[in-house]
Amino acid sequence: MMNAVTDTTPTEATATEIVLSIDAMGGDSGPATIVAGLELFLNKQPDAKVILHGPEAELTPMLVAKNLTASVTVHDAPEVVKMSDKPSKVLRSGKNTSMWSAIEAVRAGQAQVCISCGNTGGLMAMSMLRLRKAEGVSRPAIACLWPSRNPSGFNVMLDAGADIRADQDDLLTYALMGASYARNGLDIARPRVGLLNVGVEEHKGRAELKVAHELIAGAADLGDFEYIGFVEGGDIPSDRVDVIVTDGFTGNVALKTGEGTANLIAELLRTNLKSNPLSMLGALLAKGALKALTKKVDPRRVNGGVFLGLNHTVIKSHGSADATGVAAAINLAHRLARSGFSDKLAARVASAVSLAQDVREETDAPS
Amino acid sequence: MMNAVTDTTPTEATATEIVLSIDAMGGDSGPATIVAGLELFLNKQPDAKVILHGPEAELTPMLVAKNLTASVTVHDAPEVVKMSDKPSKVLRSGKNTSMWSAIEAVRAGQAQVCISCGNTGGLMAMSMLRLRKAEGVSRPAIACLWPSRNPSGFNVMLDAGADIRADQDDLLTYALMGASYARNGLDIARPRVGLLNVGVEEHKGRAELKVAHELIAGAADLGDFEYIGFVEGGDIPSDRVDVIVTDGFTGNVALKTGEGTANLIAELLRTNLKSNPLSMLGALLAKGALKALTKKVDPRRVNGGVFLGLNHTVIKSHGSADATGVAAAINLAHRLARSGFSDKLAARVASAVSLAQDVREETDAPS
Repeated sequence: MMNAVTDTTPTEATATEIVLSIDAMGGDSGPATIVAGLELFLNKQPDAKVILHGPEAELTPMLVAKNLTASVTVHDAPEVVKMSDKPSKVLRSGKNTSMWSAIEAVRAGQAQVCISCGNTGGLMAMSMLRLRKAEGVSRPAIACLWPSRNPSGFNVMLDAGADIRADQDDLLTYALMGASYARNGLDIARPRVGLLNVGVEEHKGRAELKVAHELIAGAADLGDFEYIGFVEGGDIPSDRVDVIVTDGFTGNVALKTGEGTANLIAELLRTNLKSNPLSMLGALLAKGALKALTKKVDPRRVNGGVFLGLNHTVIKSHGSADATGVAAAINLAHRLARSGFSDKLAARVASAVSLAQDVREETDAPS
Repeated sequence: MMNAVTDTTPTEATATEIVLSIDAMGGDSGPATIVAGLELFLNKQPDAKVILHGPEAELTPMLVAKNLTASVTVHDAPEVVKMSDKPSKVLRSGKNTSMWSAIEAVRAGQAQVCISCGNTGGLMAMSMLRLRKAEGVSRPAIACLWPSRNPSGFNVMLDAGADIRADQDDLLTYALMGASYARNGLDIARPRVGLLNVGVEEHKGRAELKVAHELIAGAADLGDFEYIGFVEGGDIPSDRVDVIVTDGFTGNVALKTGEGTANLIAELLRTNLKSNPLSMLGALLAKGALKALTKKVDPRRVNGGVFLGLNHTVIKSHGSADATGVAAAINLAHRLARSGFSDKLAARVASAVSLAQDVREETDAPS
């Protein structure tokens, strides 16, 4: 089912046992949905091992009922991070939460990747505190997958909202991390990277974008990606580019605007197809085709924002994800763990830090 | 066809003759498309008068052939602003262009609203130079219409890309101008205004957004709008809000992302419906319903970015607009001219300048 993962750094982790650390709490519909998603995942990957974090008395009976105890170990954690909790509160008093426990298992080396449906701000703050930023990374980013016209069906966009700011050095780091993620998560040997702007002309856009433009172009060889220059909002779902780099404010607005537009069109399509008996019959006949479309742009299939730039990989699943969505996020985690993604990414970024410095010095020189 | 325009300031201009100033050149498919759009418009508004700008020898035969000479006067202008011309070049050597001539007719009081399909940057630069910014406006904005779940079918978003920056005072001005536009262009007596951010919580987002949040809330009464606070990208096509305020960088990315997403879905829908004979038959039966959907989200229907914050109204039509799109932009211009929009907007903004000062002083006081 999974494609072979190729990368120039041969650190395949397939020989090692894959263990995933999953926060069972914090999703909108509770741990039963997480366990149901876990079951879907384990049906396809029966060799994977999972550590599940949450109240043991609640979780163990669910696992017993679904006969999952051979693959899943429970780490008891009595408390839950709420969706409304501010990051500062989570850091102060979150030590007994399932989220904290899920991150700790990765930190302690018991598992390779952590997955949580909980509060994004809390998860990022806790991940930064416990896992620490990787060498050379000043702002971690959230990478999301976007349905596209590319053969893989997806593009990568980052930052989708980890930080509302990004300077030129952060944008360069995002380019390196995004390319590494596309290589390991989407199996694209030499990803095409674009920098999001309001026009493709070089004289347009904010000052930091012009500098980032030079920095990213200079790092393309070392980062093993192709830099295609500035791209616009309309290119995000296109086949011109594989990785779209932007700051977390713009990326978050773009992501939510895209989702909102897709939802509006889906709603209008449903309403219009019910408008008269002829179109209802037509919709019935075209059901398979319409279903294939829905599947293609189904947000559940792209569930899983990946935190990049920490010493381990953390995946944030949508709080409202159902079992299919949870399974998609766990599958993504499994794929990244199997490819030894964290180590590869860290190696790329670390080696690029000195390069970026060189490029910057050249850029600063009179042109 | 047109709804009555309501506004608290009773300056209806319906008694005056409406004259529109139209740049015939600069569109991707040349003046024939502009004249075809003009014909569609004049069929519905036979009393309107138009000044058409461009090479007389080329335009007059077209008007004669379509029997439009009674309504349309030609102002001869031999040169054309190219899509690739930089704004600085346009200002330096653009005096003999059709775009310049179209703006001049409005400046001289011969027409109420100017419409052009040409280069956006050039049109904005020339409009700012010749028409000047309205009192109290530091950065003019481009307002665009967005298909939405609201009864009017549209929301207003600004700035869609006039300027890549906007500080707190600019955002306040955008709120006032956007509310005035929604009232006169969409017939919404008391528009709901939202400020685009990455979350609806008050502690989120950039510093200038927090200040703008206070300023806009304080100006709601004077601006005769309802302020609903922060909104997210997903709210842009929603029925929670009528006017979405943001800076031109974010607005431009959001606009193009929304268009790109809609195009991707339309393309996938077409491909999937052709995938097998059953779905092709289904699509045939549902043709009317699918057509109604296409019409609802047809970008041609929302053609016309309105430049707000100048001493006259200028409408930028898409360069790639066909006759239907051109007619939509001219219709919008006619509607705004009929409502005496420019004067009303100027009055709102001018009266708000002193208010904004008061609000700012209150906000600066210790809280």
